[in-house]
This record gives sequence, C-alpha cells and structure tokens, in this order.
Amino acid sequence: MIPTITAFANSPDRGRGQARDMRVRWALEEVGQPYDVRLVSFAEMKQPAHLAVHPFGQIPTYEDGDLALFESGAIVLHLAERHAGLLPDDANARSRAIAWMFAALNTLEPPIVELGMATMFERDRSWFAERLAMLGDRVRTRLGELSRRLGGADWLDGAFSAGDLMMVTVLRRLHISGLLDEYPDLSAYAARGEARPAFRRAFDAQLAVFTAASRS
Amino acid sequence: MIPTITAFANSPDRGRGQARDMRVRWALEEVGQPYDVRLVSFAEMKQPAHLAVHPFGQIPTYEDGDLALFESGAIVLHLAERHAGLLPDDANARSRAIAWMFAALNTLEPPIVELGMATMFERDRSWFAERLAMLGDRVRTRLGELSRRLGGADWLDGAFSAGDLMMVTVLRRLHISGLLDEYPDLSAYAARGEARPAFRRAFDAQLAVFTAASRS
Repeated sequence: MIPTITAFANSPDRGRGQARDMRVRWALEEVGQPYDVRLVSFAEMKQPAHLAVHPFGQIPTYEDGDLALFESGAIVLHLAERHAGLLPDDANARSRAIAWMFAALNTLEPPIVELGMATMFERDRSWFAERLAMLGDRVRTRLGELSRRLGGADWLDGAFSAGDLMMVTVLRRLHISGLLDEYPDLSAYAARGEARPAFRRAFDAQLAVFTAASRS
Repeated sequence: MIPTITAFANSPDRGRGQARDMRVRWALEEVGQPYDVRLVSFAEMKQPAHLAVHPFGQIPTYEDGDLALFESGAIVLHLAERHAGLLPDDANARSRAIAWMFAALNTLEPPIVELGMATMFERDRSWFAERLAMLGDRVRTRLGELSRRLGGADWLDGAFSAGDLMMVTVLRRLHISGLLDEYPDLSAYAARGEARPAFRRAFDAQLAVFTAASRS
C-alpha cells in the first residue's frame, strides 16, 4: 500500500504549483516515497466523504492505511519524522527546523495570503489601492527580517530541511505580486528550492494534472 | 537549569492572556515544567540580542541550555514531544493531534487575526463596515466547520491534547468580537480549556506581570 493524497481536479493556480498539495508532493519526492493522487472537484471537497478526512473541506489530505491527515504542515512533518532527508539528526537542530515550518505557515504565509486575496477579490473596491500598499508593507517587513536572518546562507539553518521546503512554497506565492524580486537573496533562495530534483518532479506531476484537465 | 521564555513587559492585551506566551505558559503548566520569564519591551524586541533568538522580533521565545526556539507552535510541540500529557501515545492519534495544532495556527488563526487587526487599525477608514462584515463571514465559515467536526465532543480528537491547547488559545482571540457567542458549543469548548488548572495557573502568571507593570 502506498499513501494517497488529494489535489484539485482543476487547480485555480493553473498548474503553477501554488496549491498546497505541492508541499506534500515535494516532501514525498524528497524522501522517495511513491504516492497515489485522488483528484477532487470544488463540489466534492464540500461533500461528507471528503469532509470526513478534511474538516475544512480543502486539499491536501493524506491517507495511509488507518491514518487520515489534513493540513499540509502536519502532513509534511509526519513524513519528515518517518523518513530520512527532511529533518536533521541532532535534536536541537531538528526542533529549529520545525520552528521554521511554523514560521513559514504562521508568520510569513498569513500576510502573503492576505495580499493575494485582496489582489483577487478587492480589485474593484474603493479601498483597493490603499489596502494593497498597506498589505505590501506588511509582507515587506517579514521579507526584510527573513532576508536578514538568511544572511547569505543557502538555507535557513544548516542543510536543507522541511523548514526550507515550507518557506520556499510560501515565498513562491509572491511570484505574481513581484514583491519577491525586491529581495534578490530571497529570490535566489526560492530558486534554489525550485532547482531541487524532487521539487521538479513534484511540480511536473501537478502540472500534468492541470494540463490533462485542460485538454478534456 | 529551567527553561526561560520571553513575554511582553507591557502586554497590549492588558493581561487577558491573548499574547502568544500564554500558549507556552499553558503547555509548560500542563506538563509540570517550571520556567523563568524574561520580560521584553517593544524596543528590546527589535534589538540584536532579541533578534538573535527571534528573527521576527516577537515573543515568545524559549531557551533551554543550548537550544533557542521561536514560534509558539514549535515551542508547544517541542514540549509536547518531550513530556507526557500533551500528545497521545498512539502514533496515528499523535499525528492527528499535531494536525489540529497546524489547523489552529494556519486555518483558524489567520482570518481571526485579520478580523482583530481590522478592528484595531481600520476603524476610521471608509471601508471599515464593509470589510468587517466580510472578515466576520470568513471567520464564521471556519467556526461552522469546526463546530461540525467537534460534534458535541469535549475535545477535538479523543483526550485533551496540544491540538486543543492551540485551538482554545486561537478561539479566545474572538472574545472581544462576540463572534464565539454565536457558537455555544465552541464557547463551551473554549471554556473547558480555560477551566483546566494548568490554564488558570498560566493565566494568573501572565496577569500578574501586567498588574505589576501597571502599578509601577
């Protein structure tokens, strides 16, 4: 038995690898774990069968035998704890890598998602320009702090870890806004993540889903 | 040596236990681990000494011997993995409890924080009423899903876990808005968390800091 994840049948990102299944695919590729994918439509995500696995009706989920998990962060951590390659052996370094996972999801991602949502849903509102500037500055504050901490290193804390995996997927959400280009070191950091063979395999797999769906 | 955490010297929540050190204090109390607290001012949080421990210049941090951690989620998980009382023994149940920690921080908290920030910082803007309604509905969607999953149980997945600890601290951020009162089961769930002796001890400890600071 190999684990099964869920992904969008029709990803709103048009195969750019910004849906959250990308994180799980990337982690599975990094640790060399084959997996199946079950595609779900937006309607199916809100049906009881999917809600039984994901209480908030989203993707991805992860099913392996008796275990059903949701939340991309939890799934990546679950994989990282059971396979070599995503967390250091040293106990303290391991806790620090996990701290970077939480930082990516709880400190960086919320203002980045908020900026993306305003760009998508508030474009026609009277307040759009003013809010966009405010949200951009919130993101810049975090990017400046992240850049200072990275300090020219390849990865956030020693070797590549699940913390970098999560951070790179969060930073990639900024590609549309152009904000990441203001921080050449962070752009290069994200590009280093995207250049990893495991990332490429994961990216190609999710793009193939979108390409196939577009043809049908 | 006992671990040292950081907390606000003058908490903007006026001792209502909504600052993120509360989560770490509560977890430390649940597992019976004594701790020291180092209070930091807003100015000190942005100084090099604090930034060396917390790259984003926030609280809480956690220092124990050679280990320095930031991100409340990572600190609570670190404690939960090293002490009995916050994670189940069964491996699958353990992964599910950790999934609830991520759900609290990445699915529930972002729209709740956004609602709180709009209430604080956008009150005088022309768009305030319209945005407030939109943000309230985003939070209600998540609360409705959470309520459905809780399904009348005492805790999210079996016995009380670090997942419940994080979720209760996130829901408590809604007290000011009154939104939680629309979901009596979730109000009762948060109240169950707040009634735990470990929560009370943690709450009293952070309130004592604020009370002492107000007197001086």
